[in-house]
Amino acid sequence: MKHALLLCTALLASCSAASAPATPQGPALAPTEIVAAAPAADWSPIAPSDLLVMDLAPDTKGAARRVVIQLLPAPFSAGWTGNMRKLAAAKWWDGTAVTRVQDGYVAQWGDPDGEDKAKAKPLPPGLKVVPIEEYAASASSPELQAFLKQSQGGTQTVLPKDSYGANGEFRSGWPLGTDSSAVWPIHCYGTVGVGRDYPPDTGSGAELYAVIGQAPRQLDRNIAVVGRVIEGMEHLSSLPRGTGDIGFYKTAEERTAILSIRIGTDVPGIPRYQYLSTESKSFAAYADARANRRDSFYVRPAGGVDICNVPVPVRRVK
Amino acid sequence: MKHALLLCTALLASCSAASAPATPQGPALAPTEIVAAAPAADWSPIAPSDLLVMDLAPDTKGAARRVVIQLLPAPFSAGWTGNMRKLAAAKWWDGTAVTRVQDGYVAQWGDPDGEDKAKAKPLPPGLKVVPIEEYAASASSPELQAFLKQSQGGTQTVLPKDSYGANGEFRSGWPLGTDSSAVWPIHCYGTVGVGRDYPPDTGSGAELYAVIGQAPRQLDRNIAVVGRVIEGMEHLSSLPRGTGDIGFYKTAEERTAILSIRIGTDVPGIPRYQYLSTESKSFAAYADARANRRDSFYVRPAGGVDICNVPVPVRRVK
Repeated sequence: MKHALLLCTALLASCSAASAPATPQGPALAPTEIVAAAPAADWSPIAPSDLLVMDLAPDTKGAARRVVIQLLPAPFSAGWTGNMRKLAAAKWWDGTAVTRVQDGYVAQWGDPDGEDKAKAKPLPPGLKVVPIEEYAASASSPELQAFLKQSQGGTQTVLPKDSYGANGEFRSGWPLGTDSSAVWPIHCYGTVGVGRDYPPDTGSGAELYAVIGQAPRQLDRNIAVVGRVIEGMEHLSSLPRGTGDIGFYKTAEERTAILSIRIGTDVPGIPRYQYLSTESKSFAAYADARANRRDSFYVRPAGGVDICNVPVPVRRVK
Repeated sequence: MKHALLLCTALLASCSAASAPATPQGPALAPTEIVAAAPAADWSPIAPSDLLVMDLAPDTKGAARRVVIQLLPAPFSAGWTGNMRKLAAAKWWDGTAVTRVQDGYVAQWGDPDGEDKAKAKPLPPGLKVVPIEEYAASASSPELQAFLKQSQGGTQTVLPKDSYGANGEFRSGWPLGTDSSAVWPIHCYGTVGVGRDYPPDTGSGAELYAVIGQAPRQLDRNIAVVGRVIEGMEHLSSLPRGTGDIGFYKTAEERTAILSIRIGTDVPGIPRYQYLSTESKSFAAYADARANRRDSFYVRPAGGVDICNVPVPVRRVK
């Protein structure tokens, strides 16, 4: 390829290892094949305490609908994820609903009466009001340095500056935007964020949405990102679209009821999940293959990739 | 803004007009407000002869499901769109089905028995076998020059090189990738493309898909793009996901039947549609606002935008 747009900054030796994986007899591996071949050591556990498990009402055929969300680690959005842990512990979301599904944009859930102060469901005590500054982590903050330290020593996958003026990095399993002054979580397909009113409101974390279309990167650093859907995304993305303004359902009957939302440690029998370590050579090879498809179906590798087109692989532990 | 990433190349005077639209009393307009305020002269007609109208079987509540697709103009993918016109005229798709819905990727339709040569529905005579070279238009071809000539003289909206190594341009209503040697249609949310087998097969146009997730730009110049959904996208994007490999439905019962697919001129009572001229100042202002959200909800304009996050506005004529 003329333009190898993926850079490997931490361990230059790993760049050649990550490039052009090929079977001895045939064409290069597809990204899914690279993931399937990754050794056990390249998979990292996701703590059940970092999961938010949402059970929707069963579908029209009576099938269960569970959406599993992985919460962002500190220092990112810690004020909001802290609130969400309190809301889950208080069983606050039980009996709320998916209230909005806007095609190509978001599915949103929370209190259907939240807009009406007289009827809104009271929030549990002790929720923080988080300032706008916490949409991103300052490059110089000790908390960010501590987070970055966790991923030191491995293979770093870094993407060049994108259409949003951000460099892209993967760290400890998360796609992040960076510039010289800050690091921030970004909006991709499946990203979960915090609904809010007009600024300076930043939302409490009681009103949430998941991205169901093209990555709305214009929301980065304008709204709190708190996690991502790692299983059951189809239960949100395939819901009927709302026919009201910006996808809100016009009637209560159209909404999908939320039975419960709990932290993973409070869910009996919750499976164990792992993500492909973003500091592994397997991930670097996977990202390179996403940018340069050389497997049999393709005739022309792109030579680059959008960070939201490199979803971090997640699997259940058997 | 420090980084004004949108460039206006054709009419420099229009750049200032396109930047930072603001109401006299308040903050800048949102993209939807700019579109709503566009004068009638900035809207261009879409010929009914360029529409492909797909009627799916009614939903579980008996509601009609119509998907309206606008076909790409020549010189792009003309071999495939020509085949599609023949397939529609032959009513070939009637009785076929949506056979695959893969979350975050594509909804695909065609002959459910297409993979089995013994059972496959015979194609009408006269379909072209289109070469791989037609995935893009050569920069020097007279056909491309004729197409580009149509959009001369207006305001050009051009985006800088993106993560896929392509510059982005809007021409006569279409987002296009460009480099020094070629111009090609790209894969965004709602883009319709041609399913195919392994190369050198390029597909006939009988097997089609629409993108229902993050833009799979790695498919650009690897597969034929033939159009985009301009109405009824939700009838594809909200279908149940297939539980088989890569989203294929495991059983015939899970598929959604296609009642008919016709060219717009053969559909009684088809509405008239218009697109916001991509050579208009309104479109330039809209694209600028998509890249730099300065309306009340936002605290930090991005300073740039992905070409697939600037969907060309389409409306029904009242």
